[in-house]
Amino acid sequence: MRMVDIIEKKRDGGSLSKSEISFFVNGYSRGEIPDYQASALAMAIYFRGMNPEETANLTDAMMHSGDTIDLSSIAGVKVDKHSTGGVGDKTSLALGPLVAACGAKLAKMSGRGLGHTGGTLDKMESIPGTRIDLSEQEFIDQVNKIGIAINGQTAQITPADKKLYALRDVTATVDSLPLIASSIMSKKLASGSDCILLDVKFGSGAFMKTLDDAKKLAKTMVEIGDSLGRDTRAIITDMDQPLGLAVGNALEVKEAIATLNGHGPKDFVELIEQAGSIMLEQAKIVKTQEEGIALIRKAIADGSGLEKLRQMIAAQGGDATYVTNPEKFPMASHIIPVVSEKEGYLTRIDSLSIGLAAMKLGAGRETMESKIDMAAGIVLNKKVGDKVLKGEVLAYCHTNKEVEESILGEVSGAFVYSKTPIKTAPIVHAYIK
Amino acid sequence: MRMVDIIEKKRDGGSLSKSEISFFVNGYSRGEIPDYQASALAMAIYFRGMNPEETANLTDAMMHSGDTIDLSSIAGVKVDKHSTGGVGDKTSLALGPLVAACGAKLAKMSGRGLGHTGGTLDKMESIPGTRIDLSEQEFIDQVNKIGIAINGQTAQITPADKKLYALRDVTATVDSLPLIASSIMSKKLASGSDCILLDVKFGSGAFMKTLDDAKKLAKTMVEIGDSLGRDTRAIITDMDQPLGLAVGNALEVKEAIATLNGHGPKDFVELIEQAGSIMLEQAKIVKTQEEGIALIRKAIADGSGLEKLRQMIAAQGGDATYVTNPEKFPMASHIIPVVSEKEGYLTRIDSLSIGLAAMKLGAGRETMESKIDMAAGIVLNKKVGDKVLKGEVLAYCHTNKEVEESILGEVSGAFVYSKTPIKTAPIVHAYIK
Repeated sequence: MRMVDIIEKKRDGGSLSKSEISFFVNGYSRGEIPDYQASALAMAIYFRGMNPEETANLTDAMMHSGDTIDLSSIAGVKVDKHSTGGVGDKTSLALGPLVAACGAKLAKMSGRGLGHTGGTLDKMESIPGTRIDLSEQEFIDQVNKIGIAINGQTAQITPADKKLYALRDVTATVDSLPLIASSIMSKKLASGSDCILLDVKFGSGAFMKTLDDAKKLAKTMVEIGDSLGRDTRAIITDMDQPLGLAVGNALEVKEAIATLNGHGPKDFVELIEQAGSIMLEQAKIVKTQEEGIALIRKAIADGSGLEKLRQMIAAQGGDATYVTNPEKFPMASHIIPVVSEKEGYLTRIDSLSIGLAAMKLGAGRETMESKIDMAAGIVLNKKVGDKVLKGEVLAYCHTNKEVEESILGEVSGAFVYSKTPIKTAPIVHAYIK
Repeated sequence: MRMVDIIEKKRDGGSLSKSEISFFVNGYSRGEIPDYQASALAMAIYFRGMNPEETANLTDAMMHSGDTIDLSSIAGVKVDKHSTGGVGDKTSLALGPLVAACGAKLAKMSGRGLGHTGGTLDKMESIPGTRIDLSEQEFIDQVNKIGIAINGQTAQITPADKKLYALRDVTATVDSLPLIASSIMSKKLASGSDCILLDVKFGSGAFMKTLDDAKKLAKTMVEIGDSLGRDTRAIITDMDQPLGLAVGNALEVKEAIATLNGHGPKDFVELIEQAGSIMLEQAKIVKTQEEGIALIRKAIADGSGLEKLRQMIAAQGGDATYVTNPEKFPMASHIIPVVSEKEGYLTRIDSLSIGLAAMKLGAGRETMESKIDMAAGIVLNKKVGDKVLKGEVLAYCHTNKEVEESILGEVSGAFVYSKTPIKTAPIVHAYIK
């Protein structure tokens, strides 16, 4: 088998066989196939696409290019949730404890943030002492004991995907549906859960810009998961404004805690109820989504979700008093209101602008080496659908830096107005299973 | 400027600017842009193409990536001719001396053969002593003195093209019209002639398989040459059978000599008259093609073409008595007739099969390291249009090896018959200027 023939076959619109895909992934992973052939193939895939079978085979080959996590020693159904990344997405920190409190097992490996989207690991580290480097055994033992663990990646997961992703990033071959889908799914499948719920976001600030593209990606990933034997489902959710009110690490953790205390922002609570009820259905704890929503609401009302978060933080070495006394989180030295200069109804809050502004305030990394300021970020005071009067506060910028005027302008520029009232849509636009 | 943005622009169907193309060619040539970005761009160009301006800019940038030959110290109009490669293509060795005898200046750099097509340099070396490594000054002096020189490449010509071509070969990006055209034209333009006649061949054994593709390539190259200030024209010629009768180095030189003696095969003479008359028009020696044909015929009839070949070989250190006494060329130890097992009219003689069989008999290189047997090759005894009786000789295989039966089968398999007489077409199918 020659790599050049595989490239030519795909270039000419052919379908690659399982053995051709393995030849590529294994050879590339071992360094036997050079980058210049891999990038030519990636570009050919960009133009020609891949059918569902090819995409599943690519995922399978990448998943098996490194270690896979064996969760079989954990009793019960293991559920996992993956978001394609958004602004203000603190979902795992509220949703995870809630579904665990309802009896599902959540053994989740998470990542760090880069650019305008945050990472769950960074958020967890805003609570002093919290470890995200549990050994595989510690990780499994914790899930068995308290039902939940969120950890950094310990094992050598999907090295082929890492290498290919880095290459795609510099060869303009990121935006290919089968390549995006197989990259995400190879990591999720290697993490070993029985069920996966995907939260595919669309809009400004999300990876997918349109509802249609988000649906296509979700469908492709669900097909991959199902064909490789995992119960995979997806919800398509709106990123036409940041999720909830808080953007920034400690600010988001406090919002997750507030939500578990029953004081969550409407859109965030709605997302958690919808996603949680599906995960409980996948875990066979409930038979219908209605039952699931009732259970999630109960876990908020009776404090069992909050208690589960406290247990998780304590088990991972963190100072759990932060969960019970969130006023312990450090506050930024400057909290600057951004005021509306217009009157109207908000139709959109550009997530990308808010995410980038929060990053500049200190909340995110511009490069993998940047240091995060845990207290920095933005707290929205208005959401889409709200009526805003001239002079009202749109958002508060939290920072320990001297703030440049231009950043405040970027924040206020993110708010888009209409003269007439608008009807807001539910946060979940589609459910694919 | 970032290479990834250039790749993305082309991927999305945009047109690259002159500065973007220079950035790529210069950066790649200097090793600052890695192979994996160059191959991704090549694949994007494969799918998206390039407009005439982009193609000319690419050619120009590659032409200037190395040395360019300055022929200004040669008096008169310098003409050059380039064939895209065929089987039995000894054109330069007869056409060059003829146009030089008629007063044009031919300062030609040529190449070696690889695979099933032969190279002019190899053919010249079948005459003992012939040098193909003249210095630039020797080369120019010789053209000034006798009007013609055919030399190997001395200067460092188009290094960017060489590097890119090698990369395209292993990334399935060879078959792209703008990349093929700019590769050929960058070399031709760097060689410094005022006028270029391109002989674009089509059919089995040629690079372009169809008349349409050959026309497109020719048109693209003529546009490039014209836009960069050279009088560039092209003829489209048939490769549905080998050119002339002889295939193989010494065999082809002998056929070129025979042609200059007035005993050339009909199709080969026709090609030389057509191409020669256009080159004489380009050199402003004649005003019409008819005049040009008359002049070429005269140079054959009065022996001045043959004398010019003798002068060139002598000037380059070769034993010129081979030109006057071609029986001096070594003969192969085995000359094996291939006999027809059928009766009919020949409609096609598959050039690729004949070229590959000749290579296996010793006439060509399978890799750049292979040694050539100058005496080996195939001499056709029948051409397209001929009536063949069962038992008649189709061709003779010349070799110094023990011949495998399978090779003789490949030769006879190359001949395609019809039961009814066929009308043969002129060798030049189109003229593009």
